[in-house]
Amino acid sequence: MKTGKPLAENVHIAADGSGVEIIDQTALPGAYVTKVLKSREEMVGAICRLEVRGAPAIGIFAAYSLYALSEQRLGEVRRTAADILSIVREEAEALKAARPTAVNLAWAVDRLVAVAERTLASVEDRTEVSEEGQTALVLALGEEAEAIQAEDIAMCRAIAEYGLSVLRDGDGVLTHCNAGPLATSRYGTALGPLLLAKEEGLAVHVFADETRPLLQGARLTAYELARAGVDVTLICDNMAATVMRQGKVQACFVGCDRIAANGDTANKIGTSGVAVLAQHYHIPFYVLGPSSTVDLACPDGSHIPIEERDADEISRLYFDRPVAPEGVRCYNPAFDVTDHDLITGIVTEKGIVRAPFDENLRRLFGE
Amino acid sequence: MKTGKPLAENVHIAADGSGVEIIDQTALPGAYVTKVLKSREEMVGAICRLEVRGAPAIGIFAAYSLYALSEQRLGEVRRTAADILSIVREEAEALKAARPTAVNLAWAVDRLVAVAERTLASVEDRTEVSEEGQTALVLALGEEAEAIQAEDIAMCRAIAEYGLSVLRDGDGVLTHCNAGPLATSRYGTALGPLLLAKEEGLAVHVFADETRPLLQGARLTAYELARAGVDVTLICDNMAATVMRQGKVQACFVGCDRIAANGDTANKIGTSGVAVLAQHYHIPFYVLGPSSTVDLACPDGSHIPIEERDADEISRLYFDRPVAPEGVRCYNPAFDVTDHDLITGIVTEKGIVRAPFDENLRRLFGE
Repeated sequence: MKTGKPLAENVHIAADGSGVEIIDQTALPGAYVTKVLKSREEMVGAICRLEVRGAPAIGIFAAYSLYALSEQRLGEVRRTAADILSIVREEAEALKAARPTAVNLAWAVDRLVAVAERTLASVEDRTEVSEEGQTALVLALGEEAEAIQAEDIAMCRAIAEYGLSVLRDGDGVLTHCNAGPLATSRYGTALGPLLLAKEEGLAVHVFADETRPLLQGARLTAYELARAGVDVTLICDNMAATVMRQGKVQACFVGCDRIAANGDTANKIGTSGVAVLAQHYHIPFYVLGPSSTVDLACPDGSHIPIEERDADEISRLYFDRPVAPEGVRCYNPAFDVTDHDLITGIVTEKGIVRAPFDENLRRLFGE
Repeated sequence: MKTGKPLAENVHIAADGSGVEIIDQTALPGAYVTKVLKSREEMVGAICRLEVRGAPAIGIFAAYSLYALSEQRLGEVRRTAADILSIVREEAEALKAARPTAVNLAWAVDRLVAVAERTLASVEDRTEVSEEGQTALVLALGEEAEAIQAEDIAMCRAIAEYGLSVLRDGDGVLTHCNAGPLATSRYGTALGPLLLAKEEGLAVHVFADETRPLLQGARLTAYELARAGVDVTLICDNMAATVMRQGKVQACFVGCDRIAANGDTANKIGTSGVAVLAQHYHIPFYVLGPSSTVDLACPDGSHIPIEERDADEISRLYFDRPVAPEGVRCYNPAFDVTDHDLITGIVTEKGIVRAPFDENLRRLFGE
């Protein structure tokens, strides 16, 4: 790849420019494995298999992937503007179809498609674009992908600072799934305030839900926090009620995959249950995410498609023997929707949004 | 063993009288393995390793075990009444120490100790008891153990009938952990109404929480219900909120390990969370258990000791590779307490107890 400046992030263009490099999150915490993905199939596969996961990280990865795929297909022969746009859009659609729930994936890919459209806006559909012109377009796509990542780093830092503002020294914080550096860039979203608290010398104790079926909390959150020296205790998802009842939790911090206009929030399956428990035990429940997860075009949670995944993730994956009777029916939704009235605040890089969410989200993110 | 009539139950005296036979519940659903336990160490070990589990089944098992151990140690030489009582009490204490939360274990063992005390009440401490007298005592212990099991069978049937009375054709029922035939005898407690519904031709759809960390829901509940032809769907614990939110659940049925005088109920970790969710979604939440789990001497849930188990159950057991970073701290309480104000009704063999629980439990079970 001609233009990729490798960034010291979990998603970046490989040093030799041969593809997009990721940390394989399915291998953690046992092994730290990086992978360079070159073809569309490999890239879509990495998203589907959750080798790269976390809404912002998927967005960044998809942007770099679209850039890499465009580079593979453009610049070697003269092509019409219409053909070029059709190639970029075709790769974009394939990437967007990999996971339907997270809005960042489509958002990031669409930003690159818009760059292509703007660049070619003044060119007639049937006009041929020179090899140099195509290369310039690919460069512009690469710059847009890098911009998305750079913005994400700045956003995560701002989210971490806003999130930290609601914590006090000695607080216990419960988190679900993984919304840390691996899922985003550097600080992460839900884990950002906890990592920043550590840097600033605050004693915060974190309870990490293991997050069945794919155990992102056990494998990734516990790994990221322990590595950063944050005081963390791993619990099974069904123990959250107990640590709350015991008074050990003063706040819940979770990430998000999509926030509807009314504040309803899609996130990893189990999030809504944590929110109900937090309300019952009078514990503030915060959703942390960048503005790219706010989808004002989506009126409420009922309009967010929820991906359903294989039964095997429940009955077999991760186990050294089947843990359920052969052929038993499993229901395996990957996400759930947390009703806005269970949410204390939505922490974004622009500040903390509180109820009434419809009004306040529109004010901060509308137009 | 001289007296054991083998009952066609999951806990019984081995056909050759050599010990207490159980179905090893840790091998299910992959394999159906029975085991005959002969020494105190084997019996205590089977309880600790959850090879036999479920409060009523533990009680029955402990009663048969105390009978078997008494038989091993009595009847061969003349012994003083004091020595005999001390032997019975010593074995009883060892069995009772195996698991501290379930009240049935102590309750069942104490019934046998009381038989020994009554039998020897008229005998002076220092008076020697003949071999025949000791054998008669052992026989009485065996009869008491069988009586405990027979009562449990009758109780489970009555509980199943009362529980069924709150269900309607087509209902969805969510259950947590395993309170079925394996945990008790024949019908079980929480699963009793569901098995009876099937027998009576009612369509009931069951959602079984897998119940981390030991997966009793996946391994045992899904197995028992599927084997009986009940329509069952396995979910991860953190999916309970979602199926409730979707309107798929009309009632929750759970077992119990101990019910305090005010109705606070100890049961498998995660039960209290299900109760909070059920209240939030306006779904009735029923605790099902025999009167032996009601402990009027225990004023409320704060007096119930909660067993904490090994971290490895969360981070390693059942997995073919470690799923958490090496050495990460885990918190692994085996039970939790569900506050009485989250409970719609306590279904016992004597009827359904509703709020105010303190008054109504005392009326039904006092004196």
